[in-house]
Amino acid sequence: MQIAIIGLGRMGGNIARRLMAHGHECLVFDRNREAVSGLQGEGARGASSLQELAGLFAGRRVFWVMLPAGEPTEATIRELAGIAAPGDVVIDGGNTFYKDDIRRARELEPRGIHYVDVGTSGGVWGLERGYCMMIGGPEDTVRELDPVFDALAPGYGDIERTTGRDAPDDRAERGYIHAGPAGAGHFVKMVHNGIEYGLMQAYAEGFDILKTKNSEHLPAEERFDLNLPDIAEVWRRGSVISSWLLDLTAIALAGDRNLQHFSGNVADSGEGRWTLEAAMEEAVPVNVLSAALYARYRSRQDATFGDKLLSAMRYGFGGHVEIPQ
Amino acid sequence: MQIAIIGLGRMGGNIARRLMAHGHECLVFDRNREAVSGLQGEGARGASSLQELAGLFAGRRVFWVMLPAGEPTEATIRELAGIAAPGDVVIDGGNTFYKDDIRRARELEPRGIHYVDVGTSGGVWGLERGYCMMIGGPEDTVRELDPVFDALAPGYGDIERTTGRDAPDDRAERGYIHAGPAGAGHFVKMVHNGIEYGLMQAYAEGFDILKTKNSEHLPAEERFDLNLPDIAEVWRRGSVISSWLLDLTAIALAGDRNLQHFSGNVADSGEGRWTLEAAMEEAVPVNVLSAALYARYRSRQDATFGDKLLSAMRYGFGGHVEIPQ
Amino acid sequence: MQIAIIGLGRMGGNIARRLMAHGHECLVFDRNREAVSGLQGEGARGASSLQELAGLFAGRRVFWVMLPAGEPTEATIRELAGIAAPGDVVIDGGNTFYKDDIRRARELEPRGIHYVDVGTSGGVWGLERGYCMMIGGPEDTVRELDPVFDALAPGYGDIERTTGRDAPDDRAERGYIHAGPAGAGHFVKMVHNGIEYGLMQAYAEGFDILKTKNSEHLPAEERFDLNLPDIAEVWRRGSVISSWLLDLTAIALAGDRNLQHFSGNVADSGEGRWTLEAAMEEAVPVNVLSAALYARYRSRQDATFGDKLLSAMRYGFGGHVEIPQ
Amino acid sequence: MQIAIIGLGRMGGNIARRLMAHGHECLVFDRNREAVSGLQGEGARGASSLQELAGLFAGRRVFWVMLPAGEPTEATIRELAGIAAPGDVVIDGGNTFYKDDIRRARELEPRGIHYVDVGTSGGVWGLERGYCMMIGGPEDTVRELDPVFDALAPGYGDIERTTGRDAPDDRAERGYIHAGPAGAGHFVKMVHNGIEYGLMQAYAEGFDILKTKNSEHLPAEERFDLNLPDIAEVWRRGSVISSWLLDLTAIALAGDRNLQHFSGNVADSGEGRWTLEAAMEEAVPVNVLSAALYARYRSRQDATFGDKLLSAMRYGFGGHVEIPQ
Repeated sequence: MQIAIIGLGRMGGNIARRLMAHGHECLVFDRNREAVSGLQGEGARGASSLQELAGLFAGRRVFWVMLPAGEPTEATIRELAGIAAPGDVVIDGGNTFYKDDIRRARELEPRGIHYVDVGTSGGVWGLERGYCMMIGGPEDTVRELDPVFDALAPGYGDIERTTGRDAPDDRAERGYIHAGPAGAGHFVKMVHNGIEYGLMQAYAEGFDILKTKNSEHLPAEERFDLNLPDIAEVWRRGSVISSWLLDLTAIALAGDRNLQHFSGNVADSGEGRWTLEAAMEEAVPVNVLSAALYARYRSRQDATFGDKLLSAMRYGFGGHVEIPQ
Repeated sequence: MQIAIIGLGRMGGNIARRLMAHGHECLVFDRNREAVSGLQGEGARGASSLQELAGLFAGRRVFWVMLPAGEPTEATIRELAGIAAPGDVVIDGGNTFYKDDIRRARELEPRGIHYVDVGTSGGVWGLERGYCMMIGGPEDTVRELDPVFDALAPGYGDIERTTGRDAPDDRAERGYIHAGPAGAGHFVKMVHNGIEYGLMQAYAEGFDILKTKNSEHLPAEERFDLNLPDIAEVWRRGSVISSWLLDLTAIALAGDRNLQHFSGNVADSGEGRWTLEAAMEEAVPVNVLSAALYARYRSRQDATFGDKLLSAMRYGFGGHVEIPQ
Repeated sequence: MQIAIIGLGRMGGNIARRLMAHGHECLVFDRNREAVSGLQGEGARGASSLQELAGLFAGRRVFWVMLPAGEPTEATIRELAGIAAPGDVVIDGGNTFYKDDIRRARELEPRGIHYVDVGTSGGVWGLERGYCMMIGGPEDTVRELDPVFDALAPGYGDIERTTGRDAPDDRAERGYIHAGPAGAGHFVKMVHNGIEYGLMQAYAEGFDILKTKNSEHLPAEERFDLNLPDIAEVWRRGSVISSWLLDLTAIALAGDRNLQHFSGNVADSGEGRWTLEAAMEEAVPVNVLSAALYARYRSRQDATFGDKLLSAMRYGFGGHVEIPQ
Repeated sequence: MQIAIIGLGRMGGNIARRLMAHGHECLVFDRNREAVSGLQGEGARGASSLQELAGLFAGRRVFWVMLPAGEPTEATIRELAGIAAPGDVVIDGGNTFYKDDIRRARELEPRGIHYVDVGTSGGVWGLERGYCMMIGGPEDTVRELDPVFDALAPGYGDIERTTGRDAPDDRAERGYIHAGPAGAGHFVKMVHNGIEYGLMQAYAEGFDILKTKNSEHLPAEERFDLNLPDIAEVWRRGSVISSWLLDLTAIALAGDRNLQHFSGNVADSGEGRWTLEAAMEEAVPVNVLSAALYARYRSRQDATFGDKLLSAMRYGFGGHVEIPQ
């Protein structure tokens, strides 16, 4: 299938590569000319503008936008809306807020342009392992794109089949789902990332307890000398908490057991926050997901104003002076 | 009443002063000789050892221990156990873990020594405002000490009477309660401090939001220029969140609106932690009290190992590099 | 001053009463005719439509809208926008989201209508105690309305002056502040309510620990028989955690020590949620404020789907069967 | 190797089976005679008392105690201490608090009895998949028991090797580690379970958001019709959050998409609580692990006293009446 990939960063470039490897014809565009020529060298056809990109199609056009969420994606889709013809498809494969998908689909529908949102998980490993995709959009359009999704997805692989599973639609088992109408794909991906934050923080807190148990700040008789790389490794086998994130933890600790190459200033993208907002719209209590997000905020700060206010109150009622440690 | 005060720090010294101001005779001891002579200059009788202190009593001895919780208090009470005679009273007015009170009472009871635990709130303001006391111990002994507690407590003052209150025992309204047998006093004080942590953190987080709303890190059009001293001040009047901690906040902000004199390395004493342990023994969910304690732990650290592990995982699955900010 | 009050519920009615008691002339409107005639009997002039209400003014019109946030307020202000003349003032005294204030002010400004947002705290006690007000809007307009705010505010009262306070503007000490441009008033009020949730939950968790310590579910030797009304009462005097919310707690427990008249299905209004959203926009960690909101969500549910999923996983890996208790 | 298994419940029975399948000779005891005769039928030698069990050994005795933590384990080890001879080994394979291990090792050491603690993960799947084991105890003893641990562990299996791993000790890769001296095994297992709670709750909250997005309580235009079994399934493939717990979730949802067979009254064992206590001893902030534990407490309750107190305060300041939903 002919498909245009717009945005050739880490994700977009690898998506183009994986599609080409499965026999699809990729038309590519990026504001960065070198990214375009790089992909051209791997077999893609490049364009120097969206307009030119549109002209490369033989028939119905399918644009896969893979850009940072927010204005970069928004502006590109606005421009595509002016270029696309009825029957064309615009796919947002980035990390867009699902309500923006709903709005865009409503705007594009009267002009006959089909809007599809794809939440894509897999990171830098997707090229090799395949991408897990959560898709929103019109039933027919999603069906027509099946060869694309099938190429990008991991497929059955050697993952053990879920006991009791008996569903006629095997797409989930091949690594992608049609989650519902526009927005549903990014909604499911958003919650996926919310869970991801929670899982990561659970491991982070646990390993922090293990690491601190070795610390010289504890009295000698309370200390252990725990081997963190071995602990991560052993939990990968037969334990209840084995996971891919644990595999990555084991890799990180194998190479740098004190993680001294990492700053610990942890970024967060929109999904963590949107997940909390969704939870609040539904009145679902989400203490773990919130705590995971806030830990990232806190990681990027020195003493907060709130901390100082605690010091000030303690001084106020008890004469306590907090000495910096 | 003759009463010995052991430990003449900020709390102990003021307790002696307030008792003397109400006509009680204070016998005082501290390892620090200057503290003793200071109080002597204010009318107390000083001793240079616990043994000597015991000898100053004309009749039944009442020892009020006002030392840091843990070994200092424990060692002193152990020594007093060897000195005291049947009928004597040992009071622990510090911040002892309530299970230690229960154990001590059991140890002292067979020897006829009455053990009383007093959770004392009021900080540096207690000398003037009076102390709020939560008392555990034998009914008779607590009753006999009534003149002491009455002198230390704030009394009715000009606090409005609680609508609908109709209890024969007016001690709570005078500022102290007999909470139950040994340990009950410190148990109630422990929960008091747990709540205190939660209240403080609620204010801290709220003021942090206000302060950050003024921050240059926000886009100009999202910023306000909020006057924090005025906000604290106005909330003291007619608002639902007026409190003594808010009064202290207003004082702190009036003097230093950026709280730049405070480090924000916030200490915690045992009560916060014991409150969580008590909650866990009872299976009571306490997300707020926990978060308040953990905020203090975090305030004393730079990047945690857990934060670094998050960075490491993010690098692992997404190639994200966390740059220190 | 002539002022119209629109919405004569618990808050609006008492605001009208307090204004009249301070010599202001109140013109009132409510969809509920009985509410209007009730206030007429207390000296207000009533109207049966906003149009008629506008006609009652002798000069510049000041409309104080005191309706539920969201559509009721929005629709009323939209209608007032069509009625008001340049120079008139529209005040929203309800619990509006501050970004709606910013939008409305922008819409009304070109037409010369001045928009003022007033966050109002004080609840059913405001009539007697006065209201704490946080005000956003144009400097001049807020100044011109000073007689209104002064009448509604508690005034100096007998609250002790904040040590070190030395600000030329004494409005905060009289119970109201001009927090900034449109939206600033409701922003501060929003954070106020966020803090309120946190404070309330801190007390709730603490009293839950105390109450459960009396429970027959604990082994007899671990149990106390704590008197909760007395504990609330004693904490009102000289303790670090005295507050108005504690006063209310003492009243509630004095009348019903087991709180058996309360369902525990706790509602939440928009402010709790908006406070978290504001914190997320600022990347401020707010574990306590979040936990307080989520406790309310949880209080309104039986077993969540999440709980069931925990049961299902436990069954999956351990064969554990969770029996309803 | 000859080894005695004491306690033939779900875990102990399967451990005996797996050991026998690997050629070890199992001597078994349980207070439940049927459990003993069952295992006898599978090739074990049974005993009707610990004394008799000890007599079945040809040489050095190795006792693996696999009983519920607390008194059942404690009493058995106390009895074994009277039976065992110098050089014998007592293994506690249950979920004991690690400080109890440290105490027991100190008590048994002077008598020449070697104490080994084994944290064992794997649940009902361990018989087939093998057990992940975290071991504390003397270096020599743990080495001598290697054939036992090797038989129980999963072994290399087909799990991909950790990139960069380069450790001479391959035991972690075979599924067990010697974590340190007595107590270290159960300490690591305790943290493992703490993490497990956090992971489970992260999934629970995420799926709760997904499920509630389908709910009729939402306005129709905000609702999706998400297929939860498919979502769990697709996340198993190529997503960042794939894990064994997610596999179990997929199985549970495949069989019962509304989880209507589960009560949602979620039990917790000691490890969750002990993990928090360990964190507090180390001053490590653990908001996620705490929230996960507290969610379980809350799941077992109807309205808490704390919830009722919130209702009572809301009534107090706002006249709000909370109606049960």
